[in-house]
Amino acid sequence: MTTFSPETLRLHLAAQREVVEEALARVLPPEGASPALLTSAMRYSVLAGGKRLRPVLCLALADICGFAGSGAERAEVAEAAAALELIHTYSLIHDDLPCMDDDSLRRGRPTCHVVHGEAMALLAGDALQTLGFEILSSRPAGESCAGTRAEAASMVARAIGVAGMAGGQALDLVETGRPHGGEEGRTLLRRIHALKTGRLLAVSASLGALYAGAPPSLRLEVERYGERLGLLFQIADDLLDVTGDTATLGKTAGKDSAQAKLTYPSLFGLEGARAELDRVLRQTREAALAVEGRDGLLSALATWAGQRDR
Amino acid sequence: MTTFSPETLRLHLAAQREVVEEALARVLPPEGASPALLTSAMRYSVLAGGKRLRPVLCLALADICGFAGSGAERAEVAEAAAALELIHTYSLIHDDLPCMDDDSLRRGRPTCHVVHGEAMALLAGDALQTLGFEILSSRPAGESCAGTRAEAASMVARAIGVAGMAGGQALDLVETGRPHGGEEGRTLLRRIHALKTGRLLAVSASLGALYAGAPPSLRLEVERYGERLGLLFQIADDLLDVTGDTATLGKTAGKDSAQAKLTYPSLFGLEGARAELDRVLRQTREAALAVEGRDGLLSALATWAGQRDR
Repeated sequence: MTTFSPETLRLHLAAQREVVEEALARVLPPEGASPALLTSAMRYSVLAGGKRLRPVLCLALADICGFAGSGAERAEVAEAAAALELIHTYSLIHDDLPCMDDDSLRRGRPTCHVVHGEAMALLAGDALQTLGFEILSSRPAGESCAGTRAEAASMVARAIGVAGMAGGQALDLVETGRPHGGEEGRTLLRRIHALKTGRLLAVSASLGALYAGAPPSLRLEVERYGERLGLLFQIADDLLDVTGDTATLGKTAGKDSAQAKLTYPSLFGLEGARAELDRVLRQTREAALAVEGRDGLLSALATWAGQRDR
Repeated sequence: MTTFSPETLRLHLAAQREVVEEALARVLPPEGASPALLTSAMRYSVLAGGKRLRPVLCLALADICGFAGSGAERAEVAEAAAALELIHTYSLIHDDLPCMDDDSLRRGRPTCHVVHGEAMALLAGDALQTLGFEILSSRPAGESCAGTRAEAASMVARAIGVAGMAGGQALDLVETGRPHGGEEGRTLLRRIHALKTGRLLAVSASLGALYAGAPPSLRLEVERYGERLGLLFQIADDLLDVTGDTATLGKTAGKDSAQAKLTYPSLFGLEGARAELDRVLRQTREAALAVEGRDGLLSALATWAGQRDR
């Protein structure tokens, strides 16, 4: 039985990220592919590093739920997991555009539109969303997997549309700068986070369970874990925006309060946000236990996510 | 045997558009659905009318290739066909944005960003692409259709990504304003059109054949017809931009030459473009014959498409 000390977890995540990077290299248009300006913009933003949390989570859950495919099938599932990163990157590129958050720094580098121009950044985001669905609906190949492919594409689409990521971004956009407080503000904040980042993280975990052929009841537990982990990351991110610096974050620090965004520190106070983090950490570890049946990778991941601001 | 006089065709298209409008009303978020600003922007652009060419083509080919589903299945196929219109509309919204073509008029109304703001127009386009894939990957429902759903999503994704619509838009963007002429310019123009509009029209036709369970050889013929019909529309559109007026077009006339776009009239001359139209019309009618085996709907559609500028 593997126990996950912080060091074991670090090594495990690094190894899984390597699998994801290789899958991304396989699914992205090769360097110089036509139209070169478009494919360069796509590669620039996807290959900028990052935690690769969504695909890593997907692969972790596939393993935990007993994925038993061949080596070739495993490589194809890694590509489907990589599609989640393409879709996440699409949302970051569009989110950074001047008409949205107007941010110039992401993952420690100038944002896509700063380097490639607004029009190409827009199209790169569009094409990354499309490529994500192309991969999800075509991998793993094979007659017996057709139902899995259709369900994967459908699950991800529901998670990133009006009732998910895009809806959350729209709400965030509309509510930013408006005065909010008290219980009403906190409810709204939870809803924005659940839609904007929670749904895609939940579905990333759930997708792994789908590829492993897990029964619906287990997939539901897995989804609950992903949702809570997403919330945990979001609270930690909100805290980091206040307590971190731009160099460590790789994105502009203090941006949230400058834009009067709804965040955990702004609505709960710094101490209140930390208490909320602890509460959600406990919930996430409970959800991990329901899936793993013991302290394992998912529990260690939760602890790691919750410690990021300390 | 139905023959398609111009009047029969007009009635047939009107009836099919009605089927598409009903399907669109079923798949779009209902009026006022949350987040209201996002769903209003989506509904505004989708429900602005238009020829509904892509879904109509899909339904036509499903019928011609012998679609034999139940009434409920037929309604679901109409929804999948409507997904093509959602995806087409997403491309129009993004194409009209200030950082792209910067157009303020579309389908006779102010463009999405003029009415709903740039950020909401961006998100509306994003969410319409997503909704398109959600529908394609979930309809028609039923175990036996899983392969069809996965293939439909995969086909459409390939048609609108880097090797299709988005790639064509990127090329168009890069090449607009650059000096082009002679055979090199004409080859480039054909490539841009084939990618930007041809691929989605080809796949719209091919999707109908897929839903009808047509064999691969027939689907290939159907795709060839869709590609040529797309080219025919494009040449006619280019001619209309020169010879039409803004009121008739419902979009800004003379915009192509103002932006120094590569078009058939600019590269072939007005007479040359008309000759090219006639040539492609003959090819499209040949392709129609290969699918229908006689003069029928597809041939009449070709004639209609080719006559639009006369």
